[in-house]
Amino acid sequence: MREKCAVFGITSDSDVFDSIYKGLYSLQHRGQESAGMAVCSKGRIRIHKGMGLVSQVFNSVSLDGKCGIGHVRYSTTGLSEVENAQPLLINYSKGSFAIAHNGQIVNAAELKSTLESRGNVFTTTSDTEVIAHLIVREHIKTDDLVAGIRNAMGYLKGSYSLTLLHGNTLIAVRDPSGVRPLVYGKSGDTHVFASETCALDVLDIDLVRDIKPSEIMTITGSKVRSDIGKAGKVSHCMFEYVYFARPDSILDGKSVYEVRKNLGAVLAKEGKVKADLVIPVPDSGITQAVGYARASNIPFGEGLMKNRYIGRTFILPDQKQRDIGVKVKLNPIRSELAGKDIILVDDSIVRGTTIKKLIHLLKDAGAKKVHVRISCPPLKFPCFYGIDMQSRKEFIAAKKTVEEIRKEIGADSLVYTSIKGLLTAIGLPVTSMCMACLNEDYPLTDPQTKL
Amino acid sequence: MREKCAVFGITSDSDVFDSIYKGLYSLQHRGQESAGMAVCSKGRIRIHKGMGLVSQVFNSVSLDGKCGIGHVRYSTTGLSEVENAQPLLINYSKGSFAIAHNGQIVNAAELKSTLESRGNVFTTTSDTEVIAHLIVREHIKTDDLVAGIRNAMGYLKGSYSLTLLHGNTLIAVRDPSGVRPLVYGKSGDTHVFASETCALDVLDIDLVRDIKPSEIMTITGSKVRSDIGKAGKVSHCMFEYVYFARPDSILDGKSVYEVRKNLGAVLAKEGKVKADLVIPVPDSGITQAVGYARASNIPFGEGLMKNRYIGRTFILPDQKQRDIGVKVKLNPIRSELAGKDIILVDDSIVRGTTIKKLIHLLKDAGAKKVHVRISCPPLKFPCFYGIDMQSRKEFIAAKKTVEEIRKEIGADSLVYTSIKGLLTAIGLPVTSMCMACLNEDYPLTDPQTKL
Amino acid sequence: MREKCAVFGITSDSDVFDSIYKGLYSLQHRGQESAGMAVCSKGRIRIHKGMGLVSQVFNSVSLDGKCGIGHVRYSTTGLSEVENAQPLLINYSKGSFAIAHNGQIVNAAELKSTLESRGNVFTTTSDTEVIAHLIVREHIKTDDLVAGIRNAMGYLKGSYSLTLLHGNTLIAVRDPSGVRPLVYGKSGDTHVFASETCALDVLDIDLVRDIKPSEIMTITGSKVRSDIGKAGKVSHCMFEYVYFARPDSILDGKSVYEVRKNLGAVLAKEGKVKADLVIPVPDSGITQAVGYARASNIPFGEGLMKNRYIGRTFILPDQKQRDIGVKVKLNPIRSELAGKDIILVDDSIVRGTTIKKLIHLLKDAGAKKVHVRISCPPLKFPCFYGIDMQSRKEFIAAKKTVEEIRKEIGADSLVYTSIKGLLTAIGLPVTSMCMACLNEDYPLTDPQTKL
Amino acid sequence: MREKCAVFGITSDSDVFDSIYKGLYSLQHRGQESAGMAVCSKGRIRIHKGMGLVSQVFNSVSLDGKCGIGHVRYSTTGLSEVENAQPLLINYSKGSFAIAHNGQIVNAAELKSTLESRGNVFTTTSDTEVIAHLIVREHIKTDDLVAGIRNAMGYLKGSYSLTLLHGNTLIAVRDPSGVRPLVYGKSGDTHVFASETCALDVLDIDLVRDIKPSEIMTITGSKVRSDIGKAGKVSHCMFEYVYFARPDSILDGKSVYEVRKNLGAVLAKEGKVKADLVIPVPDSGITQAVGYARASNIPFGEGLMKNRYIGRTFILPDQKQRDIGVKVKLNPIRSELAGKDIILVDDSIVRGTTIKKLIHLLKDAGAKKVHVRISCPPLKFPCFYGIDMQSRKEFIAAKKTVEEIRKEIGADSLVYTSIKGLLTAIGLPVTSMCMACLNEDYPLTDPQTKL
Repeated sequence: MREKCAVFGITSDSDVFDSIYKGLYSLQHRGQESAGMAVCSKGRIRIHKGMGLVSQVFNSVSLDGKCGIGHVRYSTTGLSEVENAQPLLINYSKGSFAIAHNGQIVNAAELKSTLESRGNVFTTTSDTEVIAHLIVREHIKTDDLVAGIRNAMGYLKGSYSLTLLHGNTLIAVRDPSGVRPLVYGKSGDTHVFASETCALDVLDIDLVRDIKPSEIMTITGSKVRSDIGKAGKVSHCMFEYVYFARPDSILDGKSVYEVRKNLGAVLAKEGKVKADLVIPVPDSGITQAVGYARASNIPFGEGLMKNRYIGRTFILPDQKQRDIGVKVKLNPIRSELAGKDIILVDDSIVRGTTIKKLIHLLKDAGAKKVHVRISCPPLKFPCFYGIDMQSRKEFIAAKKTVEEIRKEIGADSLVYTSIKGLLTAIGLPVTSMCMACLNEDYPLTDPQTKL
Repeated sequence: MREKCAVFGITSDSDVFDSIYKGLYSLQHRGQESAGMAVCSKGRIRIHKGMGLVSQVFNSVSLDGKCGIGHVRYSTTGLSEVENAQPLLINYSKGSFAIAHNGQIVNAAELKSTLESRGNVFTTTSDTEVIAHLIVREHIKTDDLVAGIRNAMGYLKGSYSLTLLHGNTLIAVRDPSGVRPLVYGKSGDTHVFASETCALDVLDIDLVRDIKPSEIMTITGSKVRSDIGKAGKVSHCMFEYVYFARPDSILDGKSVYEVRKNLGAVLAKEGKVKADLVIPVPDSGITQAVGYARASNIPFGEGLMKNRYIGRTFILPDQKQRDIGVKVKLNPIRSELAGKDIILVDDSIVRGTTIKKLIHLLKDAGAKKVHVRISCPPLKFPCFYGIDMQSRKEFIAAKKTVEEIRKEIGADSLVYTSIKGLLTAIGLPVTSMCMACLNEDYPLTDPQTKL
Repeated sequence: MREKCAVFGITSDSDVFDSIYKGLYSLQHRGQESAGMAVCSKGRIRIHKGMGLVSQVFNSVSLDGKCGIGHVRYSTTGLSEVENAQPLLINYSKGSFAIAHNGQIVNAAELKSTLESRGNVFTTTSDTEVIAHLIVREHIKTDDLVAGIRNAMGYLKGSYSLTLLHGNTLIAVRDPSGVRPLVYGKSGDTHVFASETCALDVLDIDLVRDIKPSEIMTITGSKVRSDIGKAGKVSHCMFEYVYFARPDSILDGKSVYEVRKNLGAVLAKEGKVKADLVIPVPDSGITQAVGYARASNIPFGEGLMKNRYIGRTFILPDQKQRDIGVKVKLNPIRSELAGKDIILVDDSIVRGTTIKKLIHLLKDAGAKKVHVRISCPPLKFPCFYGIDMQSRKEFIAAKKTVEEIRKEIGADSLVYTSIKGLLTAIGLPVTSMCMACLNEDYPLTDPQTKL
Repeated sequence: MREKCAVFGITSDSDVFDSIYKGLYSLQHRGQESAGMAVCSKGRIRIHKGMGLVSQVFNSVSLDGKCGIGHVRYSTTGLSEVENAQPLLINYSKGSFAIAHNGQIVNAAELKSTLESRGNVFTTTSDTEVIAHLIVREHIKTDDLVAGIRNAMGYLKGSYSLTLLHGNTLIAVRDPSGVRPLVYGKSGDTHVFASETCALDVLDIDLVRDIKPSEIMTITGSKVRSDIGKAGKVSHCMFEYVYFARPDSILDGKSVYEVRKNLGAVLAKEGKVKADLVIPVPDSGITQAVGYARASNIPFGEGLMKNRYIGRTFILPDQKQRDIGVKVKLNPIRSELAGKDIILVDDSIVRGTTIKKLIHLLKDAGAKKVHVRISCPPLKFPCFYGIDMQSRKEFIAAKKTVEEIRKEIGADSLVYTSIKGLLTAIGLPVTSMCMACLNEDYPLTDPQTKL
């Protein structure tokens, strides 16, 4: 279960390559399979992108220019992967732009089909090219790129946080529902857009605010312009808080770290149990376990030690990563566990296979009881807005009751956060959240305009 | 001065990966900067392409399927090079196809501009995407891909030898002028298209014939179909014979080896001179020198020894190939040269800088006289049909007389083959040749249809 | 401040490559710059080693054989690095062996000089080759490899945990002081030696016991033999517990995790202070901070978020790792810090530059007070036994008082664990510990025998 | 059948890296599997070496210093290959030196065994380490490195052309028989040693003379010293002229190009036959075919076209070079061959398998008759002096008569150069040549001194 991407954009009065590099480095958790950059110098956009981590793709490359965008991506496997790496460079009658996208277009197939029926041709299989075609189409009609983007947004159903580079103009776009995060920061003459605030922090750029749902923000030199398109129902993805975003980021005004601590506290109330120790599944359950421990006054400990070198090396498509087993990744600490009743905190359960193995490891290491606490209500329904969990079949909670899951995974007790608890922890109104993966309430309305 | 590409296509009753690999390997001389393949398996086209030699790009990759196309490319430098590698995968309303192109579309910019003004969007900067867009546009109108290709050809001015892969259908297309070569071979149930016959030889495939100018040849399983589009003025590129093609290839019925030997014989007559030894500039002048020696009865020798390891290693864009100097590439053999009158044979002169250095090297090594004989009339005009010599400024013969050139390069005498001698050597009628780089007579007519 | 290596060894009734791979993977924290393996098959030892992480060096390599050793290494920089990668293959009159070493020989230069003066020749600059030469020298004299090793040990002053592969015989050796850890595990017919128990855990091998100081343990097939050499003063390195070893390892009977938790508890007593929150410097201070929080009942939190992708990519010697700054590595979480009195826990202070930057970051993020607690007494004296901190000049505590250091780094208070507190936390008698870096009491005696 | 190595050495008044790079590049034909360099700067020798071509190994590396040596190597396969790459760095009581070696020590196993029995330890499996140990041993005794080398030479039986780097002193050594070539060149303050003169040419360095058999030549700054050791029976390897050396090199006063042309002329006399065309097997038979054609007045032609991209890409040990077949390498030119009687000239026959395939290809392409002419007498006996043909079993001429070979390979006639003809072509007295592979007359005497 992995989100697909992060976007970044910057305009400054000096070269931006190093800043994009650092920004993407800090967003690496949102995508490890490809990375790319587009930078404009003397009116010409140059792109470099490739498979692998930011530090690998840009190992020995540099690009001149004071305005640029960047992207990291988790892409589906396939030999033609490099074609789908971003940013995409788009050439059309009004010139050219580079575009980077985080999110997923629900009606991409229909749009693509309609566009194709009108003669459009696609050279990648990504949603992003569909968005780009619509923008081109509308830009041609209106003569104003921003107006074109606004009109293009009318056709789109889905989630999209975009950065675009058009000459020396930098543009950020967020869908009317604001599903995926996108923030704006500024210090001096440097303006930055990024998927998460942690990318501002590493550059010492002050967070100004989130890009608003429906907003198109345009920066040319020191001129900042904001256009708000037709409003939609705001639907921030709850899973950004629960799992995807970095804990040190602040999304739509809420600190991810605080939300996760709150989730731990909620669980301590909703899933109260007598125990000797609270331990997380690292890294995804750490902050929640900290919150649980603080709220319950049960000691926090580390019962599973993570190998810090797991999954950091990019493996070429033809080189099979050796199957190294769960113990190489997470090793139980017997002295901390033996004879104890343990509360094991994680962010969520998808198939249930990993948590089952971990409970087994903990008991093998001497834990008397293992109480599992999950900081997210049961995931039951597929996400069509940018998260790689699109088949209902893979969710254990779609097929089994909580008690059945408890038995299946071998826990002594199992409690999920309630939806109400989740909302309390986040602190945003239910009306502004997307929780479709929990309640099948897909909040996004049909596109405003039919293509 | 380098041509841009080679194309390849094959359909067989067994997997074709190894055959495409060998085919591209034998066409490597036509492009060393990127290589790619598209193979269809179970209705789905998969592409693998990358920067470097065939042996590097496909080092550890394989693709299943019984039908596929391939491409090698000399691309212009630039960081976004991998975007322009071929084959391109094209998705549109009637499905998808992969396309590989050798040649150059003269009116590409106009066509692109017109298409863009109608809303088309381009993600590469290659001519090939323009061709693909036109094919898509026409295919949509007619329901028959071949008819679509035929109609698309009406808009194109320029040179194009194409291979396309559409499901399990393999298609070869040659422009009405037949500028770039394209051949068809067959053995058993295996059908092959290739830029040159040497790619058939390595697969033990029998040459059937050249693809005719204007021809679209389609193979689905064992069904072979040939459509001939509207005829144009045939204009085979003379420079394929003089320089580009491998000597062991047969293009439009003429053995490149024989043509080059003939060119040597023509030079022996037109540039008759008393001398002790005929030597070639390796590798481009070898066969002509052999022909000169045979016709003149002056001994053939090797006076310049080529380092066989030059230029064989692909250097990443950011890694500067060290400047190693002409002597590392070509070392004179003093014992063969000292005290002798030498006839130095090469295929052509562009700027004149290399031949000047070589004459200097030969004299330093003791040659008494160096008579230069060039197996091609003076290059004076840019080529717009697929050869990388588009600026008139770079041709020394555009600015200077033969005598001035002789002085400039330091030769004791300098003779170029005459146009008449060139035609005699090739053996094809003047009416079927393109010699625009010699006489500014660009033979290609305007497109039949206006977009 | 980095330790230099880890060693591993295994003999089994089936191929051991995958087990060595996993074992080295779990020991990766002890060395990231080179990795290597030697495996014996049909009486012949084959070696593969290279620069980089285990997953990189063995990306596409496999070695057959049922008996082998492995090594990971932190090596000093220099272009000839690959020469010093281990295991070393040693050929001599009695055959050959492969050897892997963790530790440092104090009298290596003298021994080398003496050996050189007797005609010995060295092709690497590593201590390991000195050890190997002594073993060879003594083996030749005695006809029994183990006796040879025992005699060789008589000449050595310093720390060494070794694994050797001699045909199908696997040997582990630990110096008489037992400075560096080395453990023995067994399950069924599989016997394993490793620097830390975590390497046994990932293979589901039961820990049998530590290799004893002075012990030479030999395994051939199912035959296990233990020889104890002349005893020395036992001197386990305290810094293994404080910093080097993985928390999930058990060294000389003591759980590293428990020791670190104890260190936190000791600090909570010795460095008692009123505060709102205990936070670690990740990753080195986490377990100590957990211990501090538990003992003090002050909440544990995460105030500095670590980028998980830092330092995971191997950079070739000629490719400069971009300087990305401390904030890319550790980002403060404002919401957790603002307005609070913070206890910041780390394992140790070397130069003081990093902790100074972190305190600054925390205060910038709103922390009212920052009380620094260090789980190790002040480091003042160089280590000659395998840790890369050999110059006294680099230790801030060698030049300044605690109060001066506090001022220098900008902490509101600064407390180091006392030596007594450290010993209590470890739980081993002072007489069996090496704490020379704290008290200049270098415990190792001169070699028993003069070369 | 491949020779193993080339050596190079240079001292100058400016940095020598680029010159070593170019020198090794020009010697690349003598070894393609590893390359290395040692350069001395400020008294310290730094080494860089690796697997692959010169352009790959030194792609992004540079070394400072005004004195250095280099090496290219054809090494036997095996995973531990990089250990055997050269130069070797040798540390011993009198300091250190780097050493590079071309040749083979016949009594290496005995010497190694004796040295091992006296306690010497070897970390590679190369002859070079044996030589180095002997030099060390003797240097220690005498206090003068040159005297040490001279004494060490007394123990060696075999071929060795060495370059050594000892601080800023550059040393060249050639065995008493002068089996492998080694030349000395000088221009201004730059002194160069190289296996072949082509490496001087690319640097515009004037050839001074060959290093003499038994000579030790030492250069420190501008001081040149020559020591001649005990003389041996001179035995230059005839196969350097026939196959190994580049045609543009001059070895022991004889131009390789002239020798090969002479060999062609000898064949034209000894193997006179009526025919239409003389063609070479490229590249090894070209100059001989040129010589044959000139002497016989039968036209020279190219009947087999070589793919210039064969074998240029270094393939990692675990990546299988695809088997691409002989036709991908050499493609017959039908138009030149059809209906003709062909004389096919090659340098030598080992197993006969390749020539058999080529004759088959030529006849398939229409050749009426194929007369094979080999510019070397039948190879029958293994070489122990540096050429990779050590088993008699692999030589077809060891088991069959010329007539039997002719039948086996399918030639219409087959003539080998006679030994007398070979000597005539080379122009050196029989007494100074090694022709042991032809006549089993291994000319090397036992070592002067017993170890």
